Amino acid sequence: MSVTAAKGFTAAGIAAGIKENGNPDLALVVNTGPRRAAAGVFTSNRVKAAPVLWSEQVLKDGRLSAVVLNSGGANACTGPQGFQDTHATAERAAEALGVGAIEVAVCSTGLIGVLLPMDKLLPGIGTAAAQLSEHGGEKAALAIKTTDTVHKTSVATGDGWTVGGMAKGAGMLAPGLATMLVVLTTDADVDSAVLDRALRDATRVTFDRVDSDGCMSTNDTVLLLASGSAGTTPAYEDFARAVQAVCADLGRQLIGDAEGASKDIRVEVVNAATEEDAVEVGRSVARNNLLKCALHGEDPNWGRVLSAIGTTRAAFEPDQLNVAINGVWVCKNGSVGEDRTLVDMRYREVHIVADLAAGSETATIWTNDLTADYVHENSAYSS
Amino acid sequence: MSVTAAKGFTAAGIAAGIKENGNPDLALVVNTGPRRAAAGVFTSNRVKAAPVLWSEQVLKDGRLSAVVLNSGGANACTGPQGFQDTHATAERAAEALGVGAIEVAVCSTGLIGVLLPMDKLLPGIGTAAAQLSEHGGEKAALAIKTTDTVHKTSVATGDGWTVGGMAKGAGMLAPGLATMLVVLTTDADVDSAVLDRALRDATRVTFDRVDSDGCMSTNDTVLLLASGSAGTTPAYEDFARAVQAVCADLGRQLIGDAEGASKDIRVEVVNAATEEDAVEVGRSVARNNLLKCALHGEDPNWGRVLSAIGTTRAAFEPDQLNVAINGVWVCKNGSVGEDRTLVDMRYREVHIVADLAAGSETATIWTNDLTADYVHENSAYSS
Repeated sequence: MSVTAAKGFTAAGIAAGIKENGNPDLALVVNTGPRRAAAGVFTSNRVKAAPVLWSEQVLKDGRLSAVVLNSGGANACTGPQGFQDTHATAERAAEALGVGAIEVAVCSTGLIGVLLPMDKLLPGIGTAAAQLSEHGGEKAALAIKTTDTVHKTSVATGDGWTVGGMAKGAGMLAPGLATMLVVLTTDADVDSAVLDRALRDATRVTFDRVDSDGCMSTNDTVLLLASGSAGTTPAYEDFARAVQAVCADLGRQLIGDAEGASKDIRVEVVNAATEEDAVEVGRSVARNNLLKCALHGEDPNWGRVLSAIGTTRAAFEPDQLNVAINGVWVCKNGSVGEDRTLVDMRYREVHIVADLAAGSETATIWTNDLTADYVHENSAYSS
Repeated sequence: MSVTAAKGFTAAGIAAGIKENGNPDLALVVNTGPRRAAAGVFTSNRVKAAPVLWSEQVLKDGRLSAVVLNSGGANACTGPQGFQDTHATAERAAEALGVGAIEVAVCSTGLIGVLLPMDKLLPGIGTAAAQLSEHGGEKAALAIKTTDTVHKTSVATGDGWTVGGMAKGAGMLAPGLATMLVVLTTDADVDSAVLDRALRDATRVTFDRVDSDGCMSTNDTVLLLASGSAGTTPAYEDFARAVQAVCADLGRQLIGDAEGASKDIRVEVVNAATEEDAVEVGRSVARNNLLKCALHGEDPNWGRVLSAIGTTRAAFEPDQLNVAINGVWVCKNGSVGEDRTLVDMRYREVHIVADLAAGSETATIWTNDLTADYVHENSAYSS
C-alpha cells in the first residue's frame, strides 16, 4: 500500500523514458489534504544534489503538496543547469496539480554528474499526474527503483490513523543517510513540528544506522507528509513509534536488498559507556572490509572485530572485550573464547555482539558482507 | 640487500615450521654494533598484539641488539599466554646471542586470536642464530611474507653510509599503520633521538599515507636500528631524506602487492587549506568502496570522488571542486568538466587529483582498487 495506505494521498508511477531500458522511472505523490504538513531529513554529505538543495529550501515552511521522484539520474554535480532542471520539474508538477512550485519537493536517484533528459522528464509529469490514484502507491514504489531487485514499502497503523511509506536504496547505504529516497505519509492530524520531531527521532536510530558499504550519497532524502484526513491527532509517543516502525522496516528491507550482498549483518554493541561510543564502535565494525569478506566466507573471524573496535575512541579496555557471533562467545576478555567451530554461519542473517564492558548503553548498526557481486555491480554501474 | 645492506648487521631467515605449508616463517636481524641505537613506530590500534606491547616496552631506552620476526601467526588477542610467549621468544633469542632480553624486539604477523606453536618457534630461533650472515637480508625478507607475492626490500645510500630495509604487508594496509612489519637498518653513527625523529618524520608521510583497504592492524611495527659501523654522522636532513626514501619505496611496494588489487591509486589532494584537510580528503577518497570498484572497472567515476570529498570536514565549496583522473579534468567547479571518455584507464597506476581550491597545502594517499580477488582472498584467509 506504500504511500497511499494513509488516506488523503494519491500517487502514480510511470515510465517516462529517463531510463534507457524503458523501466518505470518517474513517481508522483500528492497530498490531497486537508492538511499539507511535511518534514524532511537530507543527506549530511556536503556535496548535495540539486533536488536536495531545492527540497531543503521548499520544506522550510513545513508544507508540501506533492513530491516528484525520478530514478535514472541523480542530478548531482550538475551545476546551475542541474538546479534549473529541478526547479523546472517542480514548476511543471505545480502547474499540473494547481499548486505552487514551492509546495513541490523533488527527489532524484541514479548516476552522478549527468544532466537529466528533461525532454523526457517534463512530459512524464503530465502523464503521471493523469494517472494519480488512491491505489498508486505500489506503482510509485516501483518507479523509484535503481539497482533494487524489489520495491520496498511498509505500513503501520494506529487507532484510526496510518503511517505508510516507500523506499529505494541498494548501494551507497551509509549513515547520514544512504542512497535512499524515502517518502512516508500519514493521515494523522499532526503539524510539521510534530512530523519533524518524529522523523528525526526515527531516522536517528533506523536509517542512520544502516551502513551497507560506508559510502554516503549526495541525494538521500526522507520525507514525511501528513494529510490530516483521518481527523485524529495521536499521542506523540504512539505516532513516533509508528513512524519508527515503518522506518525500521524499510531500513531492514534496504539491507536485505543491498547490492551483491549475501549476508545481512546486525552489529549490536552492548555495555558501552555512552550511546555515541556504541554507535562509533558499531560503525567501525560494520565498515571493516576484511571482516565483511570473512563473514561472506562464513568465517567467524572475531580478530577482525577486535581490530575494528581498536580503531575507535570509545571507552573500553582491550583485555575486557567480549565478542559473540551468532550466539557463541568466540572472544572473552580480549582473547580466545568459546570454540569458533561452534558458530553456525549458514544463514543469511549474522548477529555480532560486541560487549565493551564499559557501561550500559547500546546501539545496533546493520550492514552487509562484501562480495565479488558487489564489486561486479559497482564496477559496471555507469557503463 | 635489505637489512644487511648497512654494515654492522647480520640476518637470517628460516622455515621453523610455524607455517603449516613449510614456507620460511622466522627471521632474525642482529645489530653487531658498535652502536645499538634504535627507534620504533607502532600501530595506533588500541587492540595491540603481544609483540607490539613487548617491543614498545623494550624500545623505551632507545636500544636494541636484535629483532625476531615471525610470520604464520600474529599473536594478537591471545591474552596473558600470548605475552608470555613473546617474552619467551625474546629470552631465547637473547640467550642465543648473548645479550639481554630487553635488547630484543619481537614482531609477529598472521592470523589474530591463535597462540603461536612455541614448540616450533623456540628451536627455530637457535637455527636462525646459527645461520646469521652479513648476506642474510634477503632470506630474512622472505621469511616475513604472509600473503605477499614478493618480498620487499629497499636501500638508499649517503656519503659513506647506508639505510636499508625490508617490509612485509599485503592486506589490512591502513594508516597508523598497516599490517606491515618493517625493519630498517643503518650504519650511520646516529643516536636513538635522531633515529626516532627521522623515523616519525618519514612514516608520517609514507606508511601512514598508504591505505589499501581502510583496515588497521593490531601488529604494525616499523623499527630503525643503527650500528654506527660506518663511523660517519650525516647531517640530519641527509639522513632523514634517506630514511624517507626507503620508507616511500617500501610503501609503494606494499601498495603494488596489495591483496587482489589490479590498480594502484595515487590520490593527490591539492590546494587544501591545511595539510590535515588534504590528508582527511585523501583518506576519504581512498576508502570509498564504490570508487574503488569503479576504478577496478576502469570507469573514471568522478561523482564518487565528489561524494567522498563531501563527507569530510575539510574547507571547500562544493561548486569550486575540481577533479582530474589520469590528467583529464573530468570535474570542474563541482560539475561536469572535460569529456570522461578521454581518460585512459588501461594502466595499473591511476592518478586522481582532487583540487579543493581552498589554499595551497597538499597530501598524497596511496590506495588500491577493490576487486573480486580481494574478496576471495580475505574470505578464505583463516580457513
